Amino acid sequence: MKSIRLAIDVDSGDFGTPVIIAGILEARLSGVAPFKALMCGNPQRIREAIHTLGAADQLGDFEIIGCSDMVSPGENRAVVWKKQRTTAIVTCIALQKDNRADVSISAGDTAILLSAALFILGRADGAVRPALAAFLPTVRKKPVLLLDVGANLNCRPEHLVSFARLGEHYAGRFLDLPDPAVGLLNIGKEAEKGTRTISEADAEIRRICRNYIGFVEGHDVLAGGADVVVCDGFSGNVLLKVCESFRHLVVAVLGDQVVSDSVFKQKLMVLDAETYGGVPFLGINGTVLKAHGGSSSHAIANAIRAAVTAVNRNAVGQSA
Amino acid sequence: MKSIRLAIDVDSGDFGTPVIIAGILEARLSGVAPFKALMCGNPQRIREAIHTLGAADQLGDFEIIGCSDMVSPGENRAVVWKKQRTTAIVTCIALQKDNRADVSISAGDTAILLSAALFILGRADGAVRPALAAFLPTVRKKPVLLLDVGANLNCRPEHLVSFARLGEHYAGRFLDLPDPAVGLLNIGKEAEKGTRTISEADAEIRRICRNYIGFVEGHDVLAGGADVVVCDGFSGNVLLKVCESFRHLVVAVLGDQVVSDSVFKQKLMVLDAETYGGVPFLGINGTVLKAHGGSSSHAIANAIRAAVTAVNRNAVGQSA
Repeated sequence: MKSIRLAIDVDSGDFGTPVIIAGILEARLSGVAPFKALMCGNPQRIREAIHTLGAADQLGDFEIIGCSDMVSPGENRAVVWKKQRTTAIVTCIALQKDNRADVSISAGDTAILLSAALFILGRADGAVRPALAAFLPTVRKKPVLLLDVGANLNCRPEHLVSFARLGEHYAGRFLDLPDPAVGLLNIGKEAEKGTRTISEADAEIRRICRNYIGFVEGHDVLAGGADVVVCDGFSGNVLLKVCESFRHLVVAVLGDQVVSDSVFKQKLMVLDAETYGGVPFLGINGTVLKAHGGSSSHAIANAIRAAVTAVNRNAVGQSA
Repeated sequence: MKSIRLAIDVDSGDFGTPVIIAGILEARLSGVAPFKALMCGNPQRIREAIHTLGAADQLGDFEIIGCSDMVSPGENRAVVWKKQRTTAIVTCIALQKDNRADVSISAGDTAILLSAALFILGRADGAVRPALAAFLPTVRKKPVLLLDVGANLNCRPEHLVSFARLGEHYAGRFLDLPDPAVGLLNIGKEAEKGTRTISEADAEIRRICRNYIGFVEGHDVLAGGADVVVCDGFSGNVLLKVCESFRHLVVAVLGDQVVSDSVFKQKLMVLDAETYGGVPFLGINGTVLKAHGGSSSHAIANAIRAAVTAVNRNAVGQSA
């Protein structure tokens, strides 16, 4: 297995450079497939963080890609990729474009990262629009891939069809499933339920997906009958975020003293967004993952694991 | 406190007449405010169920409203109210129209019930479209009212504005809050996030709601900062149903043996859709609640409690 070249934006995230670098360290120590970290960010801060973490010897193969520029506050996020090419978030993508990296991770702004990915790397053949996809836990103890989760708020049928194709490919490769079950999110199972957009998408997805299971409702998503759930980016974003908040409700309901129990804590980890570390952008010529702004080092480590797996299994390539 | 006249469709629900009547019995015994049950359904089945339950003496004040007609399979659900007026579901609404009932409950088909309510009772003044509202549990141990949850899939700004007004009134009266906090569901907090529809609705809701807290995201809904969350019926339906399914995920994650523990079982009840029994229709001239098709007798009892409270607090009246 060749070593993956990972461009990572260490200037991003709510907790700054040391947490991102601690995540790289954790990923390395957890025995993920081999990768070389191209750390994009302020060189001074990177060196300080490595020193503070006492990590120089354990970080393995890495390179510091100096990026002194920061995203200007108030800048239109859709044009940062063009106007501020030396920011860490854009540099990661540029490294991919120059074939110096196989995959990028940033915990920075989604809109900046998405536009950089789309305009620098380009749209994959056949993908009508890029989509953000996210894994959620299910009752069957296997994840479900939900897309779109926020890139496309108003969707036409052909967008939903494109998401189905992208999701089928990604889940199939990433989860190693020969025929991932694809469902279309709707408010009921009956043919007459939903909007005209959904009904038109349903007919076409039925034609192109090998294992299309039809409409799935909100309560079906976490039941795990579908491996991929297709929806517009507004509903998907709402659904993803409410699921990410479930853990807080469980803690509130069961009481702190119960949840501080280490067995429960361990079991409830599966409800934690951090476990699924990183939202892949699909429909792009390249593998790009967005980590949560509030990522801990553990979440970054999980995003790195997901990124390395996605590249090794060619989950994004020939995706549409 | 005067006795509420409750028209209840005992022909509805997945488990049939005995379960609905057992729900009436449970409500009665739980010490809810006084009500008279007008049981609409097949008289033979009603008498048999009362006999089987040994409930004749405990049912208190009730009347059997004989409805022999059943909804024809394949009938267009939007016209059942006109073509099959002697079905139990339509009879309930007709009793309200004739001022023989103060409130209706049915566990039957939502579209049939909604069109009957809308066309027989009429739309409330100022309500642009009727909406379905539902309570969800929150981290703060008080419920949040979500609307619309399925009546309006494509919403214009004026629909969302109308939902805000309806929800503010209902939550204020039902939960006895002087200034319920109203939020608008979106994919981010920043002003530029979301669709044009959401942005226009935001400006107008800000003008009319006393305690408008702006955009709320998926993860804010269960956090409990808002008492009312306004959204289109597609996202709301998905959000409601995924939250209703959440209990299954917790059981799967924590393991059966843990959840069979009675303390946990009790605590997890708050996650159960049955606890909130019944979805009120808002924007209608009258109080109508839809109970889940799969309602247990306990869920029906909770729906009755909600119906009686809604009438006693005039939660629906002058709602828009």
